[in-house]
Amino acid sequence: MTREELFEQMKLKHSMLCVGLDSDFDKMPSVVKSLAKDAPIALQGSFFGGKARSVIDFNKAIIDATAPHCIAFKPNLAFYECYGNSGMKALELTVDYIRTNYPRQFIIADAKRGDIGNTAQMYARTFFETMDFDAVTLSPYMGNETVIPFLQFPGKYAIVVALSSNKSSADFQLVSDGVKPLYQIVMEKMMALGTPDNLMFVVGATQASKLSEIRRFCPDNFFLVPGVGAQGGSAEDAIKYGANSLGGLIINSSRGVIYASQGDDFAAAAASAASQTAKF
Amino acid sequence: MTREELFEQMKLKHSMLCVGLDSDFDKMPSVVKSLAKDAPIALQGSFFGGKARSVIDFNKAIIDATAPHCIAFKPNLAFYECYGNSGMKALELTVDYIRTNYPRQFIIADAKRGDIGNTAQMYARTFFETMDFDAVTLSPYMGNETVIPFLQFPGKYAIVVALSSNKSSADFQLVSDGVKPLYQIVMEKMMALGTPDNLMFVVGATQASKLSEIRRFCPDNFFLVPGVGAQGGSAEDAIKYGANSLGGLIINSSRGVIYASQGDDFAAAAASAASQTAKF
Repeated sequence: MTREELFEQMKLKHSMLCVGLDSDFDKMPSVVKSLAKDAPIALQGSFFGGKARSVIDFNKAIIDATAPHCIAFKPNLAFYECYGNSGMKALELTVDYIRTNYPRQFIIADAKRGDIGNTAQMYARTFFETMDFDAVTLSPYMGNETVIPFLQFPGKYAIVVALSSNKSSADFQLVSDGVKPLYQIVMEKMMALGTPDNLMFVVGATQASKLSEIRRFCPDNFFLVPGVGAQGGSAEDAIKYGANSLGGLIINSSRGVIYASQGDDFAAAAASAASQTAKF
Repeated sequence: MTREELFEQMKLKHSMLCVGLDSDFDKMPSVVKSLAKDAPIALQGSFFGGKARSVIDFNKAIIDATAPHCIAFKPNLAFYECYGNSGMKALELTVDYIRTNYPRQFIIADAKRGDIGNTAQMYARTFFETMDFDAVTLSPYMGNETVIPFLQFPGKYAIVVALSSNKSSADFQLVSDGVKPLYQIVMEKMMALGTPDNLMFVVGATQASKLSEIRRFCPDNFFLVPGVGAQGGSAEDAIKYGANSLGGLIINSSRGVIYASQGDDFAAAAASAASQTAKF
């Protein structure tokens, strides 16, 4: 998907929202959990266990409810891998479901991968070929070669963590060489490798005060902005300080949308939360 | 597993070798690949595709051949995830196979995970509960909370990437705040969180000259040492500069051992390579 196509969706929906599918069985409404008690079913050749089945049931309901109000979905790999191979099957089915039913949605693998060149190459094939994601989040600690293989797929994006939304982001990302903080050193090195058409950055909404400063040296790349909702960041501030002429922001909310209600109305509540978040 | 138990195995086998199971179908000997042509078989309830089946066939042969000469195995997650859910099944079966047949082996998930607290918690459960790994490699870019959840499992270890073996490790790991390089800042912060009984570090063999310097401020923690073999590092130098009174090193070789031969003798060749690597 091009940046222009993504911006078209934003304008159409008046939204920069990405719904984070951190689909944790223990936090699901009881109406979904109860389905896990059914005997496991054979599905596309895979033996599909109870909790992983609930993940796909929950995701389909959330996706259908929120798709009119968002421009992207972001499954968080940790919440799928924890169920082993049936969790991975749930991930594959989730991506297929979005692709089939909502082909204009941008799909991000929140995987924070980062490894040496030959391993990074395998991860890139996994997310862009085995599965049909549009983008993957990457951790830059091991340097340029962790990112380069992800830049070779037309229409796909590496999303490099620059300045994250969590409390301990300051531990290393703000270490300064006397001139610049590490996150800026990371961004500038990556911008020399990629273009706005294959490279985005994670910049947390809890860091909104830094967004206008970051836009000065990085005007064109999209930012994936986590930290809205449960983590306390403001989508309005992110848009105020971080938007650019092509939108430029994908604003994620996970828990604030998908667990908006624990009742039978969980899907409607998610739709309502989504319709009020990251308006553009 | 305690550090003392690990050291016992090292003394028994005169080896610090970890065999890296970067099991890539495209690089396997044809005798193994040919099995992939068989009809997929139903295995423990999972539909088990051709290439992923070859991965487990290959791994079993390599594990049986090299176990007498090594003290650890390290599956690299990228090489399993690339086959989707059947790849994850191959990973689970590999871990089970080692646990059942070689219970004294130390098993490392080379996953380089690193995310915010609630996500890190899910990854910790995945690797230490859903699967029975002894240790997981972690990328520290997002700070303390990426590591803390992994320190809560007795007998299990977080292995934090400090100074890696790849060429682009210098891009960010050597950024200095004027006093110390980033990798040292990372290690010292992590050493304040964990102990040598739940925390190890990745220090590349291609950085052997730095090992004695690193041992000065980190005398007790084990180091996982990649970069021997295909990447050009020397196991002898790593031992010379990095060993401590409890051994203190797990020296990994992947491609140099598992692809020692492309012939029908691949397992015997792997055993021979393993028997000559990281002798102690």
